[in-house]
Amino acid sequence: MSLGNGHNRVARPIRIIEVGPRDGLQNEPAIVPTSAKVSFVNALSRTGAAEIEIGSFVSPHAIPQLADSDEVARKMERLPGVTYSALVPNEKGLERARAAAIEKIAVFTAASETFARRNIKCGVLESIDRFAPLVAEAKRDGMTVRGYISTATHCPFEGAVDPGRVIKVMQRLLHIGIDEISLGDTIGKAAPNDVRRLLDATLPHIERSRLSLHFHDTYGMAVANVLAAWTDYGIEAFDTAAGGLGGCPYAPGASGNVATEDVVYALKASGAILTVDEQQVAAAARQISRALDRPLASRLSRIQTDRTSYEPVT
Amino acid sequence: MSLGNGHNRVARPIRIIEVGPRDGLQNEPAIVPTSAKVSFVNALSRTGAAEIEIGSFVSPHAIPQLADSDEVARKMERLPGVTYSALVPNEKGLERARAAAIEKIAVFTAASETFARRNIKCGVLESIDRFAPLVAEAKRDGMTVRGYISTATHCPFEGAVDPGRVIKVMQRLLHIGIDEISLGDTIGKAAPNDVRRLLDATLPHIERSRLSLHFHDTYGMAVANVLAAWTDYGIEAFDTAAGGLGGCPYAPGASGNVATEDVVYALKASGAILTVDEQQVAAAARQISRALDRPLASRLSRIQTDRTSYEPVT
Repeated sequence: MSLGNGHNRVARPIRIIEVGPRDGLQNEPAIVPTSAKVSFVNALSRTGAAEIEIGSFVSPHAIPQLADSDEVARKMERLPGVTYSALVPNEKGLERARAAAIEKIAVFTAASETFARRNIKCGVLESIDRFAPLVAEAKRDGMTVRGYISTATHCPFEGAVDPGRVIKVMQRLLHIGIDEISLGDTIGKAAPNDVRRLLDATLPHIERSRLSLHFHDTYGMAVANVLAAWTDYGIEAFDTAAGGLGGCPYAPGASGNVATEDVVYALKASGAILTVDEQQVAAAARQISRALDRPLASRLSRIQTDRTSYEPVT
Repeated sequence: MSLGNGHNRVARPIRIIEVGPRDGLQNEPAIVPTSAKVSFVNALSRTGAAEIEIGSFVSPHAIPQLADSDEVARKMERLPGVTYSALVPNEKGLERARAAAIEKIAVFTAASETFARRNIKCGVLESIDRFAPLVAEAKRDGMTVRGYISTATHCPFEGAVDPGRVIKVMQRLLHIGIDEISLGDTIGKAAPNDVRRLLDATLPHIERSRLSLHFHDTYGMAVANVLAAWTDYGIEAFDTAAGGLGGCPYAPGASGNVATEDVVYALKASGAILTVDEQQVAAAARQISRALDRPLASRLSRIQTDRTSYEPVT
């Protein structure tokens, strides 16, 4: 399925799904005030991101960091052309999403059985059976539904994950009507060749336009993975978080999402078309960094004096 | 000159030139005590690195951070199989290197004229003419000589650098008897395609075994650049610094070398052969991090609880 020799270019704009307000903040030890979240989402709306995952309608006891997602959704500005989505685990969450006028929801499962049992307290297929009615209902209401498959390459408990497992889970999700799949390297262990193996296996079973990749940067390979997925396979959507949110430098083993601004910079530098302004993203990241009172992991957010843009070597 | 479709493998071990004690510490605002430097070099000697650049015999007024390189060289342990090198700018530096029993020296120039004039106070060709007698003398003494070409892809003053310039400078260095060339992306602006263009241009003019690449991680693309250089071109030597030293997170615009441990991890995860133990490197990095009293930029040095090694997806 590779597009060829690694030098091909796909002239379609790349969609950035900004997951900082959800996947990022959910993994921060600090709880950010609602007003700071609203300002963060508003700043992100102006970066050119195609979609912003603004929060999660889970139990506030499970994830206190995101207990105010309803209020964030009510108070944030909504810009035309930006999709505002949220994670929804169950019927109650769907009601909250509907009440908050959220147009796109995301459900969450895993490729690894052990990870699913520890993280969502049931097996993979059981989780899909559970949210199937929810998905049907959301779609009847005109919502778009994304399905997250976490641990798509590596599981913290089971190790390397067989791409055959990912195909099965993905097919099941597509079967129940899910519009879009996000394949996640949850613990940031994948190298570009693992991504190639995953895409070789999965791309024959899904339209490229319905697939997004979701990398964490634990081991520093996430930007290389994004570039390999785009350069060699023409993948057009990536989940990223402004500032590389979610990986606290003081918490051993913590691992953030790959930073939006670093991904945007690297893709543009590689010749990709993006509507996102990486400097605006870095500015939004610095804003949330102040609310969290800690420096962020992204490279670009640290370059405060360099406003020059990328220049290709020709 | 590409080896093909991006999936080829070269079954030769990759040499890591550990430049943390020189290029790293030289760019840190803090001055580290000699004893901490000696411990750092001793720890690095046990990581499996092929070479350690232990310091620089420049004027202590120019770079006070490295004023004690003579003492470091005298006090450090020297392990068989590890090459201990140092930067030498002039005749006086060569005398100091000789007195310190340094077996390999490095001289420094740039591809960009403006960068050379600002950084070494003379033009590129003039700098090579100046150190030509030095190189001849070092080689008569049985030393190996490395030549750094900084700003090989981008210059902070001139922008993108024409690879034709790099070829000219490289040929001149080879002509005066330099054994090995290190091409540096000094400001960390290169994307993998820039590296490909640089290697397409330069590899016809130098044996692959005499070339090393030197990336800084300002924009987060350095690991992707290393993987592209190895996967697509079979480059076998990389200059890296434990902990990504040299880029202080609190200094705007500062940019460290790419972290040794992250490069080693990514290359091993991609199927490369290396003798370096990334956990030992991360341990050495944490040691110098304490001496600098600041967290480091490398990804692996932050993962204190995860001792598991890489597992490929098959």
